[in-house]
Amino acid sequence: MTSFSSEEAARLRPLVDPRSIAVYGASADLTRLGGMPVALLTERGFQGAIYPINPKYTEIAGLRCYPDIASLPVPADLIVIAVAAPEVVGVMRQAAARGIRAAVVFAAGFAEANDVEGLALQAELVEVARELGIVVAGPNCMGFGNLDSHAYSTFTAIFRTVEPPAEPRDTGLVTQSGSICSAIYAAGRQLGVRFNVVINTGNEACVEFSEYLEYLADRPGTETIVGYIEGLRDGARFERVATRLRDEGRLLALLKAGETEKGALAAASHTAALAGSGAVYRAMFERLCVVPAHDILHAADVAYLGRFRQRASGSRVAVLTISGAIGALLADAFTQSGIDLPELSAPVREALREGIPRFGMVHNPVDFTGNIVNRHQFAAQALETLFASGEVDFAVIYAPGFLIDRMSEGLAAVSKVSGRLVAAISTGKVASREMLEAAGVPVFDDTTRAVRALASLAHWHENRRRHVGRLRTTRPANLEVVAREIVSEARRDGEQTIDEHRAKRLMAEFGLPVARERVALTAPTAVEAAQAIGYPVVLKVLSADIAHKSDIGGVRLNLIDDGAVQTAFTSVLQSVTDRQPQARVTGVLVQKQEAAGTELLVGVVRDPVFGLMMTLGMGGVWTEVFGDVVHAPLPVTEEIATVLVRRLKGWPLLEGLRGSEQVNMTLLVKAIACVSDAACALGGDLDELEINPLIARADGVVAVDALVRLSLLPATVETVASLNETAAGQPA
Amino acid sequence: MTSFSSEEAARLRPLVDPRSIAVYGASADLTRLGGMPVALLTERGFQGAIYPINPKYTEIAGLRCYPDIASLPVPADLIVIAVAAPEVVGVMRQAAARGIRAAVVFAAGFAEANDVEGLALQAELVEVARELGIVVAGPNCMGFGNLDSHAYSTFTAIFRTVEPPAEPRDTGLVTQSGSICSAIYAAGRQLGVRFNVVINTGNEACVEFSEYLEYLADRPGTETIVGYIEGLRDGARFERVATRLRDEGRLLALLKAGETEKGALAAASHTAALAGSGAVYRAMFERLCVVPAHDILHAADVAYLGRFRQRASGSRVAVLTISGAIGALLADAFTQSGIDLPELSAPVREALREGIPRFGMVHNPVDFTGNIVNRHQFAAQALETLFASGEVDFAVIYAPGFLIDRMSEGLAAVSKVSGRLVAAISTGKVASREMLEAAGVPVFDDTTRAVRALASLAHWHENRRRHVGRLRTTRPANLEVVAREIVSEARRDGEQTIDEHRAKRLMAEFGLPVARERVALTAPTAVEAAQAIGYPVVLKVLSADIAHKSDIGGVRLNLIDDGAVQTAFTSVLQSVTDRQPQARVTGVLVQKQEAAGTELLVGVVRDPVFGLMMTLGMGGVWTEVFGDVVHAPLPVTEEIATVLVRRLKGWPLLEGLRGSEQVNMTLLVKAIACVSDAACALGGDLDELEINPLIARADGVVAVDALVRLSLLPATVETVASLNETAAGQPA
Repeated sequence: MTSFSSEEAARLRPLVDPRSIAVYGASADLTRLGGMPVALLTERGFQGAIYPINPKYTEIAGLRCYPDIASLPVPADLIVIAVAAPEVVGVMRQAAARGIRAAVVFAAGFAEANDVEGLALQAELVEVARELGIVVAGPNCMGFGNLDSHAYSTFTAIFRTVEPPAEPRDTGLVTQSGSICSAIYAAGRQLGVRFNVVINTGNEACVEFSEYLEYLADRPGTETIVGYIEGLRDGARFERVATRLRDEGRLLALLKAGETEKGALAAASHTAALAGSGAVYRAMFERLCVVPAHDILHAADVAYLGRFRQRASGSRVAVLTISGAIGALLADAFTQSGIDLPELSAPVREALREGIPRFGMVHNPVDFTGNIVNRHQFAAQALETLFASGEVDFAVIYAPGFLIDRMSEGLAAVSKVSGRLVAAISTGKVASREMLEAAGVPVFDDTTRAVRALASLAHWHENRRRHVGRLRTTRPANLEVVAREIVSEARRDGEQTIDEHRAKRLMAEFGLPVARERVALTAPTAVEAAQAIGYPVVLKVLSADIAHKSDIGGVRLNLIDDGAVQTAFTSVLQSVTDRQPQARVTGVLVQKQEAAGTELLVGVVRDPVFGLMMTLGMGGVWTEVFGDVVHAPLPVTEEIATVLVRRLKGWPLLEGLRGSEQVNMTLLVKAIACVSDAACALGGDLDELEINPLIARADGVVAVDALVRLSLLPATVETVASLNETAAGQPA
Repeated sequence: MTSFSSEEAARLRPLVDPRSIAVYGASADLTRLGGMPVALLTERGFQGAIYPINPKYTEIAGLRCYPDIASLPVPADLIVIAVAAPEVVGVMRQAAARGIRAAVVFAAGFAEANDVEGLALQAELVEVARELGIVVAGPNCMGFGNLDSHAYSTFTAIFRTVEPPAEPRDTGLVTQSGSICSAIYAAGRQLGVRFNVVINTGNEACVEFSEYLEYLADRPGTETIVGYIEGLRDGARFERVATRLRDEGRLLALLKAGETEKGALAAASHTAALAGSGAVYRAMFERLCVVPAHDILHAADVAYLGRFRQRASGSRVAVLTISGAIGALLADAFTQSGIDLPELSAPVREALREGIPRFGMVHNPVDFTGNIVNRHQFAAQALETLFASGEVDFAVIYAPGFLIDRMSEGLAAVSKVSGRLVAAISTGKVASREMLEAAGVPVFDDTTRAVRALASLAHWHENRRRHVGRLRTTRPANLEVVAREIVSEARRDGEQTIDEHRAKRLMAEFGLPVARERVALTAPTAVEAAQAIGYPVVLKVLSADIAHKSDIGGVRLNLIDDGAVQTAFTSVLQSVTDRQPQARVTGVLVQKQEAAGTELLVGVVRDPVFGLMMTLGMGGVWTEVFGDVVHAPLPVTEEIATVLVRRLKGWPLLEGLRGSEQVNMTLLVKAIACVSDAACALGGDLDELEINPLIARADGVVAVDALVRLSLLPATVETVASLNETAAGQPA
């Protein structure tokens, strides 16, 4: 684990791990905003100095109360500012003057108000913080709870009403909302989650979410981090820390608001954060093995599973119950969550039959029936058999609490010996819960919550298998030079959208098969080109200024002889002259008319937070009507491309359904990886790239059209390039 | 409400409402199967006689214990049989001999074992029950709990560990699984659900699920029924009772296992029930306004909402919170559950702004911010404004427990005055819960559970608006006569699959537009027919024996002149002679070649439980690859057809997306209703009907092919006919 002494991390230390705390606007009413921090610090036993500040009092909760900041005996590590928005900056100036370097600001009414007043107040706060060299949490934040040191800089009563966790505290909580922070904390504590630090980021005027995340990741002892976001600003930093957590096998789970348009609007208007596209976040989370939390309880449940994450798990579960019906419900729920209940082999079924009556079930789900009461040891024996077979990755067992208690020693033993995840679900009280948990067996009291959490953990395992250390690309280094040359050429010619021929030349350099074509400047050379290529051909006007060639009559299909080419050449140019006379035309493209096949689109666009993202979709109406597209960040290797293609709803069409041609999958995924390579090589120069259509057939694939749009300014430092490097550079 | 004295209902009275109970195999160990009923009856204060039977004891729990059935002083209303499967029938005979007419059988190992032994035991049990005139619950059942009389014939400890409900007890619980019965009971009781009768049906050897359901519906005071099923056997009875509950505004919610193939397999193999198709059940539930429960907690939550069901609700919700983030999560969750958060009008937003600071939100979701603490009365005022505007149907308010308490009087007042549903969600303890509930305000403590339950109730309201009293069809009565004539004709000709021409004639009688066509027996008459119809035409072999004409070369498309028709006539017949020589050919169909359009399929098939069901889908690959089909029971009126068509994923194509032709929706839904009319008229004679394709265009629709397969025997009494009658006969 990274040591905790970097300069970066030191910036947040006084916020998260202060050794002394001043409370500006402290109140003798300990239930009020200015009273609660004092109450928590004193009641929970913070060992550092506490300085309430309020000229109205001389003492609060047995502590000396100071009239102003100037009279503090020493500079506190942190000041909690519990006054209204317009007064905040003044307090910051006094604090800085007294040598205080960190502040938590509760007040709302800054940028989240989204009005002139609020935006101006926040701009001033940022400016003043920079000028004074103070690090500010919030504004509009609930503050922090440090369960290790009991440093509380928060007004939430949750730390008062909920019992703090014992050691080892291993779980961080960081959210963009105070209410959700409290809700996840309360739900997590009910499950016994041992939080170390709880952070509500608020408006993130000075410190962005990912910086807190990094601080938590750096903090010794943090094994699991759970959080809530509406949107991120620093995508590159988020990638860096999430990648690190992923590669170190630590668990990060995030609940994100804004899955629907309505939710996104609500999220966007209540903080100043940019609510990103749900699809992009989902794709990033998958790549970075961030567990997507569905709601507050699921976030808490996944946090609970954090301490069991190292037990072997995967996408094949064995379900054991004393009730066929519960077995059926669990089978439904797991299947709907993408977890398979594999058929058990005959030898396993026979072994199970030894302890299961004829009216029980030895298929998966296994139904012991109520008879297991009389020989509860058999549950552990059944698990041993199942794990020894190698046919399942993990198991859940459902039984009433008293029966789980009787089975508990057996379950604990199998868990320890097998190293595999065994989860218990019970609708009654389980007295042996702690013993089971210590042996690596999580205990749930609701079937639906159990399945959702366990499925998430299983997907995390599968996801890590697919991503950790497996994102090397094999493209030769000289291709980057080629890409840069073509870009320079285009920029020299003043093209932001590279012309189609040049774009295909670029893609071809990276190994993408493109349609045979030549540029012709006269009708006779067009005919010559057509003869060389072979009929039928297509003619297309070539111009970096024309985005939609067909719309202005710039394309002629199905040209079958010299005469047709000659006529088409003239009419294409005439159409352009008529419809878009100002377009600079660099020639006419004579292209082989490709045989029909299944049409796909492969695109890359720049997301404002995470950089270049690939979109893969079935062509035309499939994408438009059924939204049949999938997304992934770059790089997309052949292995990842295989997963993506199979995820398309139209995948059966590629497999040859209904007499459609079965496409060559090897060449298809290679082509997709080539597009990824090209986009990665272009890096900061690229704004958008689209191959549409990519025609896939049994004999291979071919790009019929290509669009490459450059960024306005060539980027120097680049999100994707760094991602690529980080990802590709992982040890295998 | 139906009186409770019918002969039918009387059959179940001794099972559900026994006045005296004998327990055969009673145990002095009150935790055992034979001890628990005695324990519950005595501890909970059952007022009737209790007769433990076991030769080993003279007394159990202070009651006289009888050595055998013969020595009982009087015949008990009910006997609980707590012995193993092979002994059950013997006990039944002794009970009958002593005049006992009802039995609950706990033992497993009957039909659910799905082996020779179990099937034989169950067959014998059914036979003997009939012979002796005994009504038997189970076998393989957990028995019943009657919370009104405290008559318990069950071995589950749940009635011991969970406090029984106070009056008024208004909720029935009936399940095919004992474990799920206990789980829903426990979860429901935690929410304060007041169950009256709890039934576990087990193998349903003698009494099917729907008969219990009917008994519960007949029982005075039952307002809500919640249950769990794996499959139903008596679809007609289920429809009857569910329709009654729907039309009387009582609430029925069912959890069904087997949504996935794996779950269905598990459900099917653990009871002897036929696990029906998930799609068919979903369609039936929608028509009958049965609330589909997603899991155990959702079933309990919906049962809890049963007592609030008469408050006005619908598909538009206002969300009010003290947290923008919780508002965003609620917006996501409601939207994903199909409930809309409408934009609020400017006047409403202005009125809200009066009590909400500038950094709060007056859009929907509304964010009061924490400032509401200082003027909590504003919450009720905001609700009044929202309801008065008519812009929303119901509302949810999220706040910490202490704040809900402060607001409670206001919330109760708005609830009472508006008659609308206001639900409170709080993550802390709500002291005023009971007062709120009494005022019609349900209180939830988790956002996700609240949204799922409230959305289900809102859908129930919308569903009732759509279905109650709105299923009249307007087809003239004489059409049934026409249908019967065509069927008789076909049966006389020995056709089980009616020939295409006759099938289209039938459909045309019911108003479905069909392609112009004539039957030709010779090439010259074919040419004549083509000239009369107008070119281009299609030729198809006409034979009731050939299911897939194209596959054997029996179809010729695009015939543009006399010569082509002549040649095609000969070659069609030659193909059939070559490929299916035994087929009886009744002629060649000369049909107008219809212009292209969007192709749909409209089918009707017979479900073994529920009878005739309609399937509507986009044609060809859309249905096959994307499963773009929707289902509904008959009748399908134009109004319902409109809903179904809009539910197709390919709906945008019908609307004219991407330059596709916008189809004539009026004529399309009329055509679908015609197919429904025809199928209803055929009733028991019909096994399958398919119009594929139905070509839809801007100028109307036309059926190009039709298949009608008759049932093997003409049915006399018919599920669908009765459904149709019941449904169509409702008062408007």
